[in-house]
Amino acid sequence: MSDPLFKRVAIIGLGLVGSSLARAVKAEGLAGAVVGADASPQVRQQAEELKLCDALEADLGRAAAGADLNVLATPVGAMGAVAKEIAPHLGKDAILTDVGSVKQAVINAAGPHVPAGVHFVPGHPIAGTEQSGPAAGFAALFHQRWCILTPPEGTNEDAIQKLTQFWNSCGSQVEVMSPAHHDLVLAITSHVPHLIAYNIVGTAADLEGVTRQEVIKYSAGGFRDFTRIAASDPTMWRDVFLANKDAVLEMLGRFSEDLTALQRAIRWGDGDALYDLFTRTRQIRRGIIDAGQETGEPDFGRRHEDD
Amino acid sequence: MSDPLFKRVAIIGLGLVGSSLARAVKAEGLAGAVVGADASPQVRQQAEELKLCDALEADLGRAAAGADLNVLATPVGAMGAVAKEIAPHLGKDAILTDVGSVKQAVINAAGPHVPAGVHFVPGHPIAGTEQSGPAAGFAALFHQRWCILTPPEGTNEDAIQKLTQFWNSCGSQVEVMSPAHHDLVLAITSHVPHLIAYNIVGTAADLEGVTRQEVIKYSAGGFRDFTRIAASDPTMWRDVFLANKDAVLEMLGRFSEDLTALQRAIRWGDGDALYDLFTRTRQIRRGIIDAGQETGEPDFGRRHEDD
Repeated sequence: MSDPLFKRVAIIGLGLVGSSLARAVKAEGLAGAVVGADASPQVRQQAEELKLCDALEADLGRAAAGADLNVLATPVGAMGAVAKEIAPHLGKDAILTDVGSVKQAVINAAGPHVPAGVHFVPGHPIAGTEQSGPAAGFAALFHQRWCILTPPEGTNEDAIQKLTQFWNSCGSQVEVMSPAHHDLVLAITSHVPHLIAYNIVGTAADLEGVTRQEVIKYSAGGFRDFTRIAASDPTMWRDVFLANKDAVLEMLGRFSEDLTALQRAIRWGDGDALYDLFTRTRQIRRGIIDAGQETGEPDFGRRHEDD
Repeated sequence: MSDPLFKRVAIIGLGLVGSSLARAVKAEGLAGAVVGADASPQVRQQAEELKLCDALEADLGRAAAGADLNVLATPVGAMGAVAKEIAPHLGKDAILTDVGSVKQAVINAAGPHVPAGVHFVPGHPIAGTEQSGPAAGFAALFHQRWCILTPPEGTNEDAIQKLTQFWNSCGSQVEVMSPAHHDLVLAITSHVPHLIAYNIVGTAADLEGVTRQEVIKYSAGGFRDFTRIAASDPTMWRDVFLANKDAVLEMLGRFSEDLTALQRAIRWGDGDALYDLFTRTRQIRRGIIDAGQETGEPDFGRRHEDD
């Protein structure tokens, strides 16, 4: 059997994504050892019970020491501080990456702490569920997904190649782009959808003419789809919106403009404008299903039989 | 074996809901005969190939003649005209109901045509998928769902009871409320969610800085959830928004107000406001899962293994 891709992989933060990555690394034999670190004693205990890692550390620096791959998997707001804390322990030619949903802000916060000789290759696997914590993770989370890398100009090519091979082995395809473009793309494909979902669930919860019980009872008419992503981790998402402010505000402005036009079409009874939009939007879904990023089964393949 | 609940059930409109109802009536033995009618020759042909009904009619009046239960299952914009067309053929003590997503507008459009002695009990099963047409239907669509009836003051109690029994037999629980309250509840639990989903998919399709291919590729970050309901039938939904204008505009106004407050929180970096909302919204989803209206499996139970 050939040597594993990395001798020692340190994963800092063992939530949904970090713990899934630990499982994937073990499942695919990508490391001689997987070391996990998390600031929370409860998370470390859960990780221990789940046997996610070969070793668990409360001290982040100790986890990073000797690791040839270090993965930051904390909320993006914490990544600068974590990078600062582990920086003195990073060895020469170690790779440092992250899984944050925003890239420019992470580069700004973590980049200055990265010592010379360490290869910083920021990354973002486009994968997740609405659940949180180490028990919610699973090795197949990254299967048939995309992982975006946003290495700064001049990053060591071998490091990029090796990290690409790592994500490929976890089941993902890798795309390289600039951090600014990543943040714009994700603002529309992920951040604004989450914000809108959180928002409508909040609007529904605050009505005086319709009870919360009614909203819950009759949610099968469409509302329940929104509640899934509005159940995502609050800390992670607070950080995303604060860290990707400019792109989110830009996309939100466009969304609101378009919504105002739709509102006007409804007020003035312009059925053709509504019909035209509703016809166009079907094609996008077809594209997503064809690209293997979604199930084509009706209702997401939710079970309909009482079984 | 006891007599079926109805001697002859006529279903006018054999799309997703009408064809599912035809299947449910047959599966549960709720009628001596199921007669289907549809204005579209293609739909009638599909219905014939699928053996959905005991008889198929192009002429709506002929379908309704002799039926003790008549169900309007067309887009709501067509229901007034359909009611007018079948009215002369409705027998004494026949029940006339519908499955429209808006109730006051259907009552306004169809009500005046209903002959004396016919029991008009408007209804709305809160069930559906994003697919359309007779081939997309299935008998279990109404299982574990709610059906709302909005009978006008003074409606024959036996007719309401019998229709309730009918929906119970199809697998649904029945709730009775006023048409105005129905329209308000559905505006927030169904109509505005659909509008927002259509809108963001349209916004994403029209960007110049992000390609449509990128939107599709990276949709797993949240966007793809919205595309499901934005793939729903365009004619049905155009009619819903035009027919429930007042309640939709009211709920949309609240949604936009709340969204503006969130936008401001992002602009000014108010992380606590974001965190508070994102924490509250989790509880609503928990309620929907506990109420049996949603799967608790992560990611809607979408399959994650490459199988």
